[in-house]
Amino acid sequence: MSTIKRIGVYTSGGDAPGMNAAIRAVVRTALFHNIKVTGIYRGYEGMIEGDFKDLVSRSVSSILQKGGTMLKSARCPEFRTPEGRKKAFDNIQKAGIDALVAIGGDGTFTGAKVFSEEYNIPVMCIPGTIDNDLYGTDFTLGFDTANNTVIEAIDKIKDTAASHNRLFFVEVMGRDNGSIALYAGVAGGAEAIMLPEKDTAIDELIDLLEVAKERNKTSMIVIVAEGDKNGGVYNVAKRVKEKFDFYDTKVSILGHLQRGGSPSSFDRILATRMGYFAVNELLRGNTNGTVGIRGSKITSTSLEEALKNKEFKLDEELLTISEVMNI
Amino acid sequence: MSTIKRIGVYTSGGDAPGMNAAIRAVVRTALFHNIKVTGIYRGYEGMIEGDFKDLVSRSVSSILQKGGTMLKSARCPEFRTPEGRKKAFDNIQKAGIDALVAIGGDGTFTGAKVFSEEYNIPVMCIPGTIDNDLYGTDFTLGFDTANNTVIEAIDKIKDTAASHNRLFFVEVMGRDNGSIALYAGVAGGAEAIMLPEKDTAIDELIDLLEVAKERNKTSMIVIVAEGDKNGGVYNVAKRVKEKFDFYDTKVSILGHLQRGGSPSSFDRILATRMGYFAVNELLRGNTNGTVGIRGSKITSTSLEEALKNKEFKLDEELLTISEVMNI
Amino acid sequence: MSTIKRIGVYTSGGDAPGMNAAIRAVVRTALFHNIKVTGIYRGYEGMIEGDFKDLVSRSVSSILQKGGTMLKSARCPEFRTPEGRKKAFDNIQKAGIDALVAIGGDGTFTGAKVFSEEYNIPVMCIPGTIDNDLYGTDFTLGFDTANNTVIEAIDKIKDTAASHNRLFFVEVMGRDNGSIALYAGVAGGAEAIMLPEKDTAIDELIDLLEVAKERNKTSMIVIVAEGDKNGGVYNVAKRVKEKFDFYDTKVSILGHLQRGGSPSSFDRILATRMGYFAVNELLRGNTNGTVGIRGSKITSTSLEEALKNKEFKLDEELLTISEVMNI
Amino acid sequence: MSTIKRIGVYTSGGDAPGMNAAIRAVVRTALFHNIKVTGIYRGYEGMIEGDFKDLVSRSVSSILQKGGTMLKSARCPEFRTPEGRKKAFDNIQKAGIDALVAIGGDGTFTGAKVFSEEYNIPVMCIPGTIDNDLYGTDFTLGFDTANNTVIEAIDKIKDTAASHNRLFFVEVMGRDNGSIALYAGVAGGAEAIMLPEKDTAIDELIDLLEVAKERNKTSMIVIVAEGDKNGGVYNVAKRVKEKFDFYDTKVSILGHLQRGGSPSSFDRILATRMGYFAVNELLRGNTNGTVGIRGSKITSTSLEEALKNKEFKLDEELLTISEVMNI
Repeated sequence: MSTIKRIGVYTSGGDAPGMNAAIRAVVRTALFHNIKVTGIYRGYEGMIEGDFKDLVSRSVSSILQKGGTMLKSARCPEFRTPEGRKKAFDNIQKAGIDALVAIGGDGTFTGAKVFSEEYNIPVMCIPGTIDNDLYGTDFTLGFDTANNTVIEAIDKIKDTAASHNRLFFVEVMGRDNGSIALYAGVAGGAEAIMLPEKDTAIDELIDLLEVAKERNKTSMIVIVAEGDKNGGVYNVAKRVKEKFDFYDTKVSILGHLQRGGSPSSFDRILATRMGYFAVNELLRGNTNGTVGIRGSKITSTSLEEALKNKEFKLDEELLTISEVMNI
Repeated sequence: MSTIKRIGVYTSGGDAPGMNAAIRAVVRTALFHNIKVTGIYRGYEGMIEGDFKDLVSRSVSSILQKGGTMLKSARCPEFRTPEGRKKAFDNIQKAGIDALVAIGGDGTFTGAKVFSEEYNIPVMCIPGTIDNDLYGTDFTLGFDTANNTVIEAIDKIKDTAASHNRLFFVEVMGRDNGSIALYAGVAGGAEAIMLPEKDTAIDELIDLLEVAKERNKTSMIVIVAEGDKNGGVYNVAKRVKEKFDFYDTKVSILGHLQRGGSPSSFDRILATRMGYFAVNELLRGNTNGTVGIRGSKITSTSLEEALKNKEFKLDEELLTISEVMNI
Repeated sequence: MSTIKRIGVYTSGGDAPGMNAAIRAVVRTALFHNIKVTGIYRGYEGMIEGDFKDLVSRSVSSILQKGGTMLKSARCPEFRTPEGRKKAFDNIQKAGIDALVAIGGDGTFTGAKVFSEEYNIPVMCIPGTIDNDLYGTDFTLGFDTANNTVIEAIDKIKDTAASHNRLFFVEVMGRDNGSIALYAGVAGGAEAIMLPEKDTAIDELIDLLEVAKERNKTSMIVIVAEGDKNGGVYNVAKRVKEKFDFYDTKVSILGHLQRGGSPSSFDRILATRMGYFAVNELLRGNTNGTVGIRGSKITSTSLEEALKNKEFKLDEELLTISEVMNI
Repeated sequence: MSTIKRIGVYTSGGDAPGMNAAIRAVVRTALFHNIKVTGIYRGYEGMIEGDFKDLVSRSVSSILQKGGTMLKSARCPEFRTPEGRKKAFDNIQKAGIDALVAIGGDGTFTGAKVFSEEYNIPVMCIPGTIDNDLYGTDFTLGFDTANNTVIEAIDKIKDTAASHNRLFFVEVMGRDNGSIALYAGVAGGAEAIMLPEKDTAIDELIDLLEVAKERNKTSMIVIVAEGDKNGGVYNVAKRVKEKFDFYDTKVSILGHLQRGGSPSSFDRILATRMGYFAVNELLRGNTNGTVGIRGSKITSTSLEEALKNKEFKLDEELLTISEVMNI
């Protein structure tokens, strides 16, 4: 049995819709087990500076539906140094925190692993990032909300596309992986999707568009992930225009609005289940793990395994489907 | 190998967001395999009356994002008679349709099974209903969208709740099961959830509310599924008010708006994958089945098994979580 | 010139989207003129109890986009007594408040007028109610947002309506006036609108529906204001069903979700302009007035005139247009 | 009295939400007066090519809530030639069209005026453009919807802004005027607004941001209209970053999604009133005019006057308010 008396919870890295819902679930599940909770503000930076606050049930009222993170987030190079981590640990000890729940992405997890091993403090991580690029879970918190945000934008562009002969390029987030581009591309009915994982040359793209044009499509949408290898959406648009001048081309860059918004039902449920599970795992004595959803089941993976398998695999079948849908 | 030359596709029963996306996927996947597609309008009624139309790629342009069903839907008692089914089969044969994809719920599936057995016509079913009450799939088409619709309503009510001391009762769909009530209740942060599956007495409900009141909640939301055993949301509200008069009580009945709306990203992806899979299953010679998602995998279940196991099981863990979240 | 040093601001009565935006504008405009601001919580109740808080620029950060009211609201019978108002004045004096901005409806304005006359304290009122039922302004705060909320609901119902032959009854707010019913009815394309101001008999309604039926409408929407004289939406639906049985009838009651939601752009701009104007009016020495928008101009009307002219007039031309649109 | 027997209606130029609602109102008002309606597709191009279709009441069912324009739109250089207009007139005459309703912007109106004078055909114009840059009306169709679209984007960015110390640049439409930038900037609570009408130097912008920084703002949003004189949003962001390096800077370019989306309640009502009024004006014998809303009244202005007064004036008071709000 666990002897955990106080859990510290923090968010770190880029924020994602659903982080607040996860914080709320961590707090209320801990309180349910008569464990106290300390909110650590601004991630590792706040840990080093002792920016702590006791969280009670009311502290997390009315945050379930809010985007962003009430605990704020920050980058913290100092935590990568042993001195920084020493300061953090001193604060943690002083505050009586004997376990941690970390919500964030890859960098957050790496920090949690090092810290946990160095100071033998139990930690459970929750994957919170819109990029859906973490091992050990089918979905990360915020990915579903981000997809919904992107398809709302695409739907609006399609309204106007129906009125003109136009070729729209929409840049979406995804520096290293094309999850949002692929999902939102399929859900938005895009004519082509440019992903970092799949090196689509401009000529291939133009071939796709030529086929669509022959089928009398009056307008087309190309989704371009940030990390596409052709040098950015403006470059793609410009190079397409040079050879494929039938259409008027227009560019949208969605940017950070993809990180915001009230979390979707899916993300709120997922966050609630993950927060609940993370605390229960700590109580069961499991530690140094990351929570994930596999199929419809919440599970945990060791941080070691999760961090070793950085290579995120794109859903190949969905990629095939996206091509079939553009027949 | 299959010798299917023409697939007939129809929607039947109550409509659900995502049905159009599934129709689009069926049409385009079939065309990809050089199979022709006939749209059968108004479900079994249109099958009996021969209300058919050839569907080409452009027929399903710009429907991905639309709620409802372009093929319309209707109830059809005549299809329950052998005479009705005979007429339907004659039309199907005349049109050269040699396989069917049916999108709908329980009644749709039952009709498909009987018809398929009687006339030896291959059929694959796609679960399209917001009620999430079908066996063989973790999620039905439209359930995610309906949950998002309900939580948007709850979020709005919460805005106003924050300004007053009020007790809100929100009736959501679910005559026989509490899936929407449970999911939307957890995702919306409701103080109590009244489900058909769990016979919560008014006194128990009042106990829950008393506890919340003691924790100084300034307003509360109770989600009531249509099928709750206490006689409807007005009755619940009235009986609570008699014994628990601290709060002003207000009632919302969301009704059919839960069936509408542009499908969520989740439902569009699910619909697209299911439509794609349904056609491929028919081509692989699988028949008399229903498509489902289990975990992250699209699978099929025989109609016989699916219809035998009508008992839908509520997610017990989520029910527990909903109680813990109200600490 | 004014010698106002501290303004007290409060919200009272039913809340409305845009109240927060108005509070923000009052605070920031006052600060711009080096006037201090006290937030009076829970309306007249908080005034009597001295529930005050100093508001600085940051106090109103990030509230522009929020529904509800950060100052909360409450009903307060005690303020109708001279003793209650005496207590309120003592608190106001103690806090150094020498002018008031009141945001709310009819009751709020009446309280403000009596109080202002009794204790000679300058007051400016801002019309904040979704009902659009105040004299001296074309639009009240929250009306536009509420209309958008209602038409989103109607649009969703229409999605599902397109799939079936159904008659939908949607109850919207409006106990004494049909503003929301009329606007949302026109903007939502309803087949009929039942208003308190226009005593439509059930037989007349059925005549309208018969005409629509003859034009082969496959589904219809009837908007019913709460205050319709036929005894409530269920009663209307039941009585129509008795004589007009072609359609399946369905009822939605939107209730308090109409009061919530992030304010629309229109309401945010209106609130900002009104809050700015209210403070400037006080500085110009105008008092005992209510702010309004007439055409595109922000103006003020004396409270005496505003409260004498309670009779709100429905837009007759829009009513005519609503009938022409249903040809 | 008018002897109009058939009205031709078309949309031209950039599309705008509410155009469909206006088409519907034109069609149904004409039918109400027993006047027939021809839909002219793709604006002047379709007029020249005779791309016409009879519109009945059902033709405009379910378009009220749709973005874009069912009549499509196109640019048409040929209409600027007398030969082009001759062809157009021949088609119009052949179709029996004896009056026109044109929905669009400046270019649409110019074409309508020339054509109407040349061939003595009565025409009424409806201002449909998100840019709100036409003389004779306080608001153009689509402006309110576009503002709502932009503030939803800003609200989402603010969610994520609350979590980090960041400076966001959001480019919105407005090549020649800053209406959207100003309205959405005020409604979105932006820290600074860069307009074509107001030549804000980068140094001035940095001064504004410095002041905000001193007030401890943790994140800031700068709205940049397309037509800002500093050379585009990327340039602005880059030049700010060079001198003001406290913040991480991020850019969003909303692009054409601002033209789409289901029209707001405001735009649907405005479109309906304008369409109704346009037809009635033609019947009253008024011609060569443009419909507008001035205050709460629908009026008309002669095309001559409207086109002479191209200079659109920014709302100076709102500009002042935007600065006061950033105190």
